[in-house]
Amino acid sequence: MLDQEHAAGPRTPGTATRGETVPTVPPAATPARRPAADVTALLERGRTLATPVLRAAVDRLAPPMDTVAAYHFGWIDAAGNPADGDGGKAVRPALAVLSAEVTGAAPEVGVPGAVAVELVHNFSLLHDDLMDGDEQRRHRDTVWKVHGPAQAILVGDALFALANEVLLELGTVEAGRATRRLTAASRALIDGQAQDISYEHRERVSVEECLEMEGNKTGALLACASSIGAVLGGADDATADALERYGYHLGLAFQAVDDLLGIWGDPVATGKQTWSDLRQRKKSLPVVAALAAGGPASEQLGEILTADAKSSDFANFSEEEFAARAALIEQAGGREWTAEEARRQHTVAVEALDTVDMPDPVRESFTALADFVVVRKR
Amino acid sequence: MLDQEHAAGPRTPGTATRGETVPTVPPAATPARRPAADVTALLERGRTLATPVLRAAVDRLAPPMDTVAAYHFGWIDAAGNPADGDGGKAVRPALAVLSAEVTGAAPEVGVPGAVAVELVHNFSLLHDDLMDGDEQRRHRDTVWKVHGPAQAILVGDALFALANEVLLELGTVEAGRATRRLTAASRALIDGQAQDISYEHRERVSVEECLEMEGNKTGALLACASSIGAVLGGADDATADALERYGYHLGLAFQAVDDLLGIWGDPVATGKQTWSDLRQRKKSLPVVAALAAGGPASEQLGEILTADAKSSDFANFSEEEFAARAALIEQAGGREWTAEEARRQHTVAVEALDTVDMPDPVRESFTALADFVVVRKR
Repeated sequence: MLDQEHAAGPRTPGTATRGETVPTVPPAATPARRPAADVTALLERGRTLATPVLRAAVDRLAPPMDTVAAYHFGWIDAAGNPADGDGGKAVRPALAVLSAEVTGAAPEVGVPGAVAVELVHNFSLLHDDLMDGDEQRRHRDTVWKVHGPAQAILVGDALFALANEVLLELGTVEAGRATRRLTAASRALIDGQAQDISYEHRERVSVEECLEMEGNKTGALLACASSIGAVLGGADDATADALERYGYHLGLAFQAVDDLLGIWGDPVATGKQTWSDLRQRKKSLPVVAALAAGGPASEQLGEILTADAKSSDFANFSEEEFAARAALIEQAGGREWTAEEARRQHTVAVEALDTVDMPDPVRESFTALADFVVVRKR
Repeated sequence: MLDQEHAAGPRTPGTATRGETVPTVPPAATPARRPAADVTALLERGRTLATPVLRAAVDRLAPPMDTVAAYHFGWIDAAGNPADGDGGKAVRPALAVLSAEVTGAAPEVGVPGAVAVELVHNFSLLHDDLMDGDEQRRHRDTVWKVHGPAQAILVGDALFALANEVLLELGTVEAGRATRRLTAASRALIDGQAQDISYEHRERVSVEECLEMEGNKTGALLACASSIGAVLGGADDATADALERYGYHLGLAFQAVDDLLGIWGDPVATGKQTWSDLRQRKKSLPVVAALAAGGPASEQLGEILTADAKSSDFANFSEEEFAARAALIEQAGGREWTAEEARRQHTVAVEALDTVDMPDPVRESFTALADFVVVRKR
């Protein structure tokens, strides 16, 4: 799939229409240089290793929290029947088990790290969906919609505690170090959500503020995922720090692509509405970059968004009205800048690997996962 | 103050009127046997050692979370002006620094543990107040009332993460063990809140279920507070486990007294409304014990509470109507049983200390704190 994407060659940013759905961002390095690590197999390996341990951890929760969590993870439906839910892309577990191999350890050594990171990620989803009032996630009603706000708070708390438990019960010095890094990532995640909430009430957000917020909300936990297996495998701090840098910038690339998909993504692939981020008035990278760019389209966009913020009729806007805003963002250069930013962050991420000594196949797998993140469609 | 209480001698349960305010529960052992450790000084020492470190930790939070947390702790008012809020009884910090002395370490060794426990306690208060819809705490509007639900969730999350951070940044094996115990206590706390919520929707809760819930909500964190300093001081697991047993049963005694104060406490002392727990239809120990007792008063109480649960006029009930319910609880033996339960748990708590080798003044201080918990008025 990756090869197909690459064979199509780089597209000119700004020329795709929404129907085309893919803001493809070809990685800065040419695919020809890349050995072909199998991303599908890497994602599948992470999922296969982590899911049974994750389910066993969630099973430890007292009723009804176990049921609510199982619903959130897509393992059961709202009526309690088994379901085969969309568990997401599973990039984090893939990175966590891969990072164990940096130290020469078996991928299994990274599994408690993969599970802990997934638990923290899902704790933040449960709480953020409630704080943001989001009613849908992964094509399904969110937990607070189905089980009420109290359960969303409570089960989020429980998953957060469980994340530390899963690591600390290993009882090793390495587990203590891993928990400390996970705690730092969790704090960043919370900081990012605080910034996200405060930016909602502001008319203008700078590109730097947006990147800082996305680094906290997405970069920090991908950084932790990319290093936690190595930490559990006994890697030194310099190695763990370099892997964190890879993951942090990968996270920023990931989020830039997410911001493109949030406006120009295919609803069938993303599971979100058309123009999803515009409907939510989200100050995502393409928007803030367009507003910062200056020029006629940028100024016109600024005026329109200021009026939108005060409009009582916003909820009833038509497809065409959102399409017009997306076109202005594109004209002002917000789409191209964001695609370029994804490439920049991708490059920095892959370069961070250079300082780390690791087996070639592991390096190729990290690189392939980075490539995947920037060409994905959902 | 303790001596005065004791000098008054045990009261006959069931004879006090509400105006008298104190469901005094004299400890099972006679005060004459006790060496006089100064509880006021112990509480003050815990507060003095822990508060600056707690404030420094909270100061690390990104705005506006630092301000919201400072409001919650009573350090500033809703307008942001410095305040000298009611920081609570500070039993937990006193226990944490005292427990460090079990190992011969300085009380200061327990400080990160005291701070971590306070952070977890306050994380749970922030979230529980929101889940329960409680509008007042410590004579002030709760965080979700003043700063909104999102900030209550977010700052609760941040305090929870900060608790682990404060411990893990010590970077020692002992800190890892302490964090593991704190995580177990946090999980119990969350389990207890889940039980509390589910019991609200049930007509009947057994005494055993109520005790299990209270053990989770109150016992587990007092258990952690009573052992965490010792763990940080290098105590072995058997010592830590025994100190946890002391704290767990002390927590159950504490909660039994709390349940008495929740019905018969003096509003001026407790900062709660008259008949507070009855107004909230709380299935606290005196209520469940009265319902389980059988006999005419018990049956009459059961009928009345069943009708109350369906009453649309409950919010407008008069003082006299609540007083009549309290009198029935007392007639059915719920008040006496709960006072007796506080004494039983106090005895088990103090006995748990017998298996631990510690300096005599430390043992005397633990005992004095246990006595304080059962004779307090707020």
